Amino acid sequence: MRMVYLIGIGPGGPEYLTMQAVAALRQVDVFFILEKEGRGKEGLAEARRRILATYREPGSYREVVAPSPGRPPAGEAYLDVVADWHQRKADLIAGLIADHLAPGQTGAILVWGDPALYDSNIEILHRIHRERLPDLRFEVIPGITSVQVLAARHKVPLNAVGGDVLITTARRMEAGSCEGHDSAVVMLDSNAAFRRIDPDGLDIYWGGYLGTEDEVLMSGPLAEVGEAVAETALREKRRHGWILDIYLLRRRRPAS
Amino acid sequence: MRMVYLIGIGPGGPEYLTMQAVAALRQVDVFFILEKEGRGKEGLAEARRRILATYREPGSYREVVAPSPGRPPAGEAYLDVVADWHQRKADLIAGLIADHLAPGQTGAILVWGDPALYDSNIEILHRIHRERLPDLRFEVIPGITSVQVLAARHKVPLNAVGGDVLITTARRMEAGSCEGHDSAVVMLDSNAAFRRIDPDGLDIYWGGYLGTEDEVLMSGPLAEVGEAVAETALREKRRHGWILDIYLLRRRRPAS
Ligand SMILES: C[S@@+](CC[C@H](N)C(=O)[O-])C[C@H]1O[C@@H](n2cnc3c(N)ncnc32)[C@H](O)[C@@H]1O
Ligand SMILES: C[S@@+](CC[C@H](N)C(=O)[O-])C[C@H]1O[C@@H](n2cnc3c(N)ncnc32)[C@H](O)[C@@H]1O
Repeated sequence: MRMVYLIGIGPGGPEYLTMQAVAALRQVDVFFILEKEGRGKEGLAEARRRILATYREPGSYREVVAPSPGRPPAGEAYLDVVADWHQRKADLIAGLIADHLAPGQTGAILVWGDPALYDSNIEILHRIHRERLPDLRFEVIPGITSVQVLAARHKVPLNAVGGDVLITTARRMEAGSCEGHDSAVVMLDSNAAFRRIDPDGLDIYWGGYLGTEDEVLMSGPLAEVGEAVAETALREKRRHGWILDIYLLRRRRPAS
Repeated sequence: MRMVYLIGIGPGGPEYLTMQAVAALRQVDVFFILEKEGRGKEGLAEARRRILATYREPGSYREVVAPSPGRPPAGEAYLDVVADWHQRKADLIAGLIADHLAPGQTGAILVWGDPALYDSNIEILHRIHRERLPDLRFEVIPGITSVQVLAARHKVPLNAVGGDVLITTARRMEAGSCEGHDSAVVMLDSNAAFRRIDPDGLDIYWGGYLGTEDEVLMSGPLAEVGEAVAETALREKRRHGWILDIYLLRRRRPAS
């Protein structure tokens, strides 16, 4: 039996780990690290290093590092491209586990935020178990999502009283996913897509680099602050070379 | 200046607290505790006690306990009933803070799960600051939600690849909120509302008392397992006198 923990680390700093995540981390023999190419790479690597430095003794664990298979730009055949990308990631991770994790040992993959939200590792480990390594067991340890840090920093509930919350992507918002929703959280935006929807009656609560030293917050009526938020996002992205940002769009209720 | 932390404690056990939550907890002079009436009361009180016993020395803090204002059954005038209930909670908490937290001291309210999800404390503290105690400051500390523990235990992502996630209530699901969504998490169900929607093509991932010793998990095609899940929920509710349950409804994608 080989055990792998998918550990949600929250949005960056070691203080976001739960006690459960720390306890799991302390049992790990081998950390599997897929390094992203290009911009933002240093930020992720640095967050991981700080977490390990905070909770583990140097020399008490191994790191197995491999370059993450690049995801080609999706375009039209989105699902096919993603399926192929997952397959390549599964092959890579299966090989790393087979080569570097002996039966009886415990491995881990540290996942930004929560492993259940816009992250492929859960599906990939199911696939590896099914197709490649039947003796593989894995556990998922929840982590604080960027959605929750956004709400906490703005001190705003995610839902209006009795209402729903939609979590969506900028890509889907541009296809209309937010219509009819009075609370929508938009992730995976790279180009200020909130400028391209009807701002009437909407407030935006925006956050960049949440939970890090570079955190930026902005909020207000989308019609009034949308341009300023877009400019800030662009400026920060230029300055850091990359950006992680997220926002809540909330429809104002008529005063009663 | 008086400071109050709204601390998300996750779904019950001390292991779900983040390091940030533990650090905040350790600075607290006074914990404000609103005791719910009736069933489930012991479970909540017990979770709180275990958390304080795990992270604080006995005698190093004060507890200020008051009965939570009851929420009358909502019926038609839902928003009015909730507004009135929030007002009574705000009056109560404002009085407790004014009477028991000296300027310069730090108070806290421990919130089940995450304070931003189906919880009124954020709005209530804003209101108290606005209407009653201008020197009140507060911070929100995110906690792991029941939504995340559900996903982690079932090892299922919340979103389908590239898709949205809707978080909704049983009340709103019965009014059609899940239609057109391929991933919907339903909370605040007290009566197995999933029996009253069209089960065709849906899988259900259900969890009761997540993160506690009494945790129960069930999953499968809704058309096949729906009745069994409803029976389990009812049986467990009878046995414990109360239930906390939540489920993800996922539309199966046609195999490609
Ligand atoms: C691939 S998803 C991963 C989400 C992650 N699993 C979570 O639970 O937050 C990446 C997206 O999450 C959001 N995000 C993640 N970390 C963030 C941060 N620190 N600040 C702002 N947004 C963040 C951004 O919308 C980003 O495009
Ligand atoms: C008033 S809401 C509070 C939600 C909480 N703030 C959170 O973040 O999970 C209560 C609902 O949360 C869900 N819930 C909370 N704790 C749970 C648990 N331990 N197991 C299953 N469901 C839970 C149930 O759907 C319940 O009706």
